[in-house]
This record gives sequence, C-alpha cells and structure tokens, in this order.
Amino acid sequence: MITIKHQSITVSSPATVANMVCGFDILGFALQAPYDIYTLTISNEKGIKIIQEDAFDLPANPEENVSGAALLAFLEAVPEIPGLILHSKKNIKPGSGIGSSAASAAGVVVAANHLINNYFPKEELVRFAMFGEKVASGVKHADNIAPAIYGGVTLIRSIFPLDIIPIQAPDLYVTIVHPQIEIRTADARQILKQNILLKDAIKQWGNIAGLVAGLIHHDYDLIGRSLEDVIIEPVRSILIPGFNEIKIKCKEAGALGGGISGSGPSIFMLSTTLQIANSVEQIMQEVYNQIGLAYNTYVTTINHEGVKILDSK
Amino acid sequence: MITIKHQSITVSSPATVANMVCGFDILGFALQAPYDIYTLTISNEKGIKIIQEDAFDLPANPEENVSGAALLAFLEAVPEIPGLILHSKKNIKPGSGIGSSAASAAGVVVAANHLINNYFPKEELVRFAMFGEKVASGVKHADNIAPAIYGGVTLIRSIFPLDIIPIQAPDLYVTIVHPQIEIRTADARQILKQNILLKDAIKQWGNIAGLVAGLIHHDYDLIGRSLEDVIIEPVRSILIPGFNEIKIKCKEAGALGGGISGSGPSIFMLSTTLQIANSVEQIMQEVYNQIGLAYNTYVTTINHEGVKILDSK
Repeated sequence: MITIKHQSITVSSPATVANMVCGFDILGFALQAPYDIYTLTISNEKGIKIIQEDAFDLPANPEENVSGAALLAFLEAVPEIPGLILHSKKNIKPGSGIGSSAASAAGVVVAANHLINNYFPKEELVRFAMFGEKVASGVKHADNIAPAIYGGVTLIRSIFPLDIIPIQAPDLYVTIVHPQIEIRTADARQILKQNILLKDAIKQWGNIAGLVAGLIHHDYDLIGRSLEDVIIEPVRSILIPGFNEIKIKCKEAGALGGGISGSGPSIFMLSTTLQIANSVEQIMQEVYNQIGLAYNTYVTTINHEGVKILDSK
Repeated sequence: MITIKHQSITVSSPATVANMVCGFDILGFALQAPYDIYTLTISNEKGIKIIQEDAFDLPANPEENVSGAALLAFLEAVPEIPGLILHSKKNIKPGSGIGSSAASAAGVVVAANHLINNYFPKEELVRFAMFGEKVASGVKHADNIAPAIYGGVTLIRSIFPLDIIPIQAPDLYVTIVHPQIEIRTADARQILKQNILLKDAIKQWGNIAGLVAGLIHHDYDLIGRSLEDVIIEPVRSILIPGFNEIKIKCKEAGALGGGISGSGPSIFMLSTTLQIANSVEQIMQEVYNQIGLAYNTYVTTINHEGVKILDSK
C-alpha cells in the first residue's frame, strides 16, 4: 500500500556518461559532478507546478518539460498524491552530452518515490523517468537514466523488456571536456550507418566482453585494452573538433581510454589516479585553446550512489 | 633456459564448445567429456612420427595432421628436442562441431610443454596450437583452442594481437547432441552475411555483456536471459534438422539455454542440475528418433582444468 511519508524532498541528481566507448546504447555510468538540485513538495493543487531556479529557460509546461513528463507518469500511478511543486536548479547544461535530461527525469522520480517511502523498485523508476527522456529526444532510452538512478556502471541488456544489470566498477577518475558546440542527439543518430560489417561487430563484442570482465575484476589493463570502438566513434567523432588529438594525447599521458560521452559533444577519459586525470584536463584545455573553441572541463569520479537524498521533511 | 624434464607425457585433451550463443568467435568453453588421449615421447629421430590408435584415418603426414602441424611449430621454437613420437587416440569425432581439431592441437602442445617443465606460458601454447587449427580449417582461430588449454570459459577479446581472458564460470551441466550429418566449417562460414543491422548488433552486445556478467557472478537467470543470438543462429540453424524444436523443448524442460556448438552440427544446452541435463538429453534423443537421424549424446559438465596430465616419465 502506498503511504505518504514525507511532504518535501531535496535531491542531487548526477550527470551521466552513456555509450561507454564500445558499449553503444548498453553501458553508462554516473558522475560525482556536475549535478542538479531538485526539491519536490506535495501540493493540494492538482498537477505539477515547475519553478525554475536556473538560467536555462526550459519549458515550464509539465508536458513539455523533462522532469514534468516523468512526474506526470509517476502521479498517474500514485493517486494518493494530488499534486507536486518542483523547484528545479539545473547545473548540467542541456545538450552537453552528459545526461542533462536524464538527470532531470531521474532526480525527480527518485525524490517522488522517497515521498512515498520508496514504494517502487528502481526498475519501475527507470520506466517513469523514460517518459521524461522521450520529451527530450523523442526516444525512450535508458542508458543515462539507469546509471543516474542506480549509480555506478549499468548495463541495459535489453530495453524491451527492460533489463538493467548493475556492473560493479572500480573507483575510476573521470575527466570531461564539453566544447561549446551543439550536436543534436537526433543528428548524431542520423549519421550512423544502419548496416555494419560482421567482422567489426565481432571486434566490438570482444571489447564489450573484455570491458565488462575488466570492470568487475578491477583489471585496469583489460579495461584500457577494451576501451575501443570500431563502429560508432569513427563516424561520430568527425562532428567533434579536436577529438582524435585529445584521445591520442590523453592516452599518452596515462589515461586508460575514453571517447564520446553520449552523442557528444563532450569527451570523457578514464584514469586510475587524480594526477593523471588532472594532466588529462590540461591536455583537453590546451587542445581547445589552440582550436579557439570555448569549453568547460570537469575532473570527477564515478558516482556509485546515483541520485542522492539531501533533505527530507 | 629450456631444460628437458620428462621423456614421455600422456594427456587427456577435452572437447570444447565455441561460439557460445551470442559470443560468436569470442567465447568458448571446455567439456569434461568426450576427450582424446595423447602420449608424446622424445625421440632422437628428427621430426614428428604419428602413430594413430583410432579409426578416424586422419593424415599421418605431420604437415597435414593437426597435431603434427602444432608440434612442428613447437619444435621450431625448441631445438633442444630433436624429434617426437605421438601416440594419438582420438575419441572426439572430426567434424562434430565440438572442437575435435582443437583437442588435437591443444593436447599435444600442452604435453610437449610439460616435457620442458612448462617453459612456455599458456598464451604461447595457444599460438603453437593455432598452426594446427589452420591445417583443419584454413583459419587460425582460437575459440576452441583457448578453452581447451585454459579450461573453463574463455574470452578471445582479440586475435591480432592475441588477448585471451579466462572468465570464471559456475559448474554448469552441459548436454550435447551430435546429429550424424556433415557441415563443413568453411560452408558454415560462407552462408553468414557479411553485413548485419546495427540494431541487431546492439542486441547482441547487450546479451554478450549480460552473459559475461552472469557467468562471473554465477547469476543463472541472467545467463539464461542472455543466451540469445539474433545474428548467427537464425542463419546457421537452417543447416541443422530439428534445431528449433530441440531448443524450445529443452528450455521448457528447464535448460538455461544453448545453441549451435561451433559451426555445428552439434547442439549444446546448459543446465543447472544433472536432472535437467538428463531430461534435455532425452528430449534431444526423442527429436532425432522422430526425424530418423542417427546421433550421439553426451551429458557432462564445464571442465575448469583444460588439457590434463595423466602420466609423465
């Protein structure tokens, strides 16, 4: 039975990296930073009211808003809650390729579930949040939402039926650079070839198997050898200036490897130490300074927890 | 430094299953039965002399014989041994799809390495044995050799460069049926499409990631859900009478799943108990009795040890 336990919840909801090099559409992981802050309060007024406390000028109509759409799906399953007021403070820039919309969708459904004493299992929360992702990209994908909700590295073995498998991953450092260009997810999908060579697919699934085994066994060498994408990256990296130079130089500096975050334009690199992760950041900055492109960088770690409750009343 | 420790070694060399459903060309595992027996004795006469103690009538010329070719590659690296006499007693029928040639190649190189106090690491033995596989199929593949040498389930992440990763697998029961039809490996390769759909490849790598995680964590449900091949099996299973009926009925009887062993015609099914593995055998027998096709069946387990030393002098 659904019972209301809290009146108000504040959460942090993390950025995430989908399409983990060889793991296109199936592997993603959560980051410690950046993250959004959401406060959800039960209201007697029906429906969702969204109060935006950031400068991103996202749609305020719940049906067109990622958080709003996810919460509408949630409310439909929870008639015990008449309405919700959402205070939304996003730090993850939409369109950056590090799961901004997934953070919006995942954060609010985890918060809403906490109001009712975590009635729904995580997998059900992913389903609610996917209604939000559909507003953002037209597709109900889960490879950012799942790591945002579960934390760590998650495998989406299958979307229909939904089958999410948390992969125990080591404490890796992550360096992200977000060059200030826009790549629409729809465009990044469109340039992909619908047909691929069987021999390339075999290489790719060898690497995926190696990556999963490497993550579970904390075998850094194996993770590094497996972080290779012969199918998606060669096509999509063309859209990201400086990509190849950054990748080569970061690996020379000791990074295990990395690639395009989501559908870009952000690039991520994994490292075993903070020192290497900082060197990697410096390389990224130098490359974009030389190209003359504005950018943001982050040095962070894999977030094993996912959306985090900061306060409850 | 290479030193000769033994004058004569006898080994058993196991049958193996390559192409573990979704793991085409990358995953294989070793079986407890059937196995071949090889005795290798140092001789002062140069070269390889092969004495066959079975009825398979394989080529006796070392260059055309799978064991012979593997041993010639080995001898080239070990000038300390002038020549070898091989007594070969095969039980694994050539062409059955359960790694008969790999057993021939792997068994003799492990035996030869034991003569010199296991001078070479396992990966090097795989390289020698691949010369044997080349005689058998024209291709230097390793997905039967690696599990025969390492035991258990092995991942061939990459062939060039060779990268073999042992995957810790649970004690699963394996039921094998070998219908007495002939499928040449080269023919089975030829009917495969060179181009596949990206969306099918994504399904396949989701399943491979799930299978590897399931094996390592001994998660039988996940193993079962992941044992699905949307790319190779739909094409190749057409060559194997009764395939679909066997697969459906065995899963109904409680098998986790299974598929074509190697390039066929053998079919394998994995089960968690001996009782289920025996029911599965009965189903296989009934289907081929009804079709009117001769067959052999085996109920066995995953072999975690690989080629085994039986005797040394």
